[in-house]
Amino acid sequence: MIVIRAANEADFEDIWRVFHRVIAKGDSYVFPPDASREDARGYWLSADFKTFVAILDGAVVGMYKLRPNNIGLGAHVSNASFMVDPDCQGRGIGKAMGLHCLEEARRDGYLAMQFNFVVSTNTPAVKLWQQLGFEIVGTLPKAFHHAELGLVDAYVMFRFLEPWQN
Amino acid sequence: MIVIRAANEADFEDIWRVFHRVIAKGDSYVFPPDASREDARGYWLSADFKTFVAILDGAVVGMYKLRPNNIGLGAHVSNASFMVDPDCQGRGIGKAMGLHCLEEARRDGYLAMQFNFVVSTNTPAVKLWQQLGFEIVGTLPKAFHHAELGLVDAYVMFRFLEPWQN
Repeated sequence: MIVIRAANEADFEDIWRVFHRVIAKGDSYVFPPDASREDARGYWLSADFKTFVAILDGAVVGMYKLRPNNIGLGAHVSNASFMVDPDCQGRGIGKAMGLHCLEEARRDGYLAMQFNFVVSTNTPAVKLWQQLGFEIVGTLPKAFHHAELGLVDAYVMFRFLEPWQN
Repeated sequence: MIVIRAANEADFEDIWRVFHRVIAKGDSYVFPPDASREDARGYWLSADFKTFVAILDGAVVGMYKLRPNNIGLGAHVSNASFMVDPDCQGRGIGKAMGLHCLEEARRDGYLAMQFNFVVSTNTPAVKLWQQLGFEIVGTLPKAFHHAELGLVDAYVMFRFLEPWQN
């Protein structure tokens, strides 16, 4: 059973472990493989946004954060980022966090959710977000330097939060 | 004749004047109309990116900044932002800055340039960028809360920098 709860400072070592495993692959996030602990902390733990961790069998196996995608006149659209421990993929952790995040965003009154940079070759992610109601609304040509594939496209994905439907 | 040069701290009062005039209209930037001087400073003057000002008849009439659109594996795509004093529109300032910015980005070795949020109803801007070789590669539904029109779409616009062509 996957439990999702608000993250706190005590989760940092676990967050760092997952973060480091994910970015080492160079296939889904723009962080360079040598990104530091402080990079990870700045990205995942801040008073400026909400962070949640997913726990499976007592271990942190993923995390997500939720925030406005823009300030001011664009703050009605939310943005979220997700990471799942590569060793734990295919166990529904991303989907559980995605559903939790959509509910959280809706509760916070956002009109929509936007992902600014989904690597096009990250097929499990693209399929998951489509399954959860997101559409590809933009294609950024050669925007990501994939560790194995070289320059590949990234997608902008989007869904409205009303009416509520998964 | 429009002169474009690197901005410095001494330009801040001019930058603030243009910034405040632009955002007061609520039709092109996400900053709320009451954004502060410190918001303007953080957005326009930083060691993290390059800022240029456009000068016409001895007065600062616009500014732009240039930076990587992402860190690490996405840092080969540049991003730029532009503001022109609303009282000086239609005089080629945006175009002059756009051409200057494209040249600067090419010199810095970027592969492409991306604008993440061009308000769809800001027709002069959309047309200018298309004229300078940008294409609309994404449409963000209702992403901008326009002061007069309510929720309107925003565009993601993109162009490669090689081969060099304007």
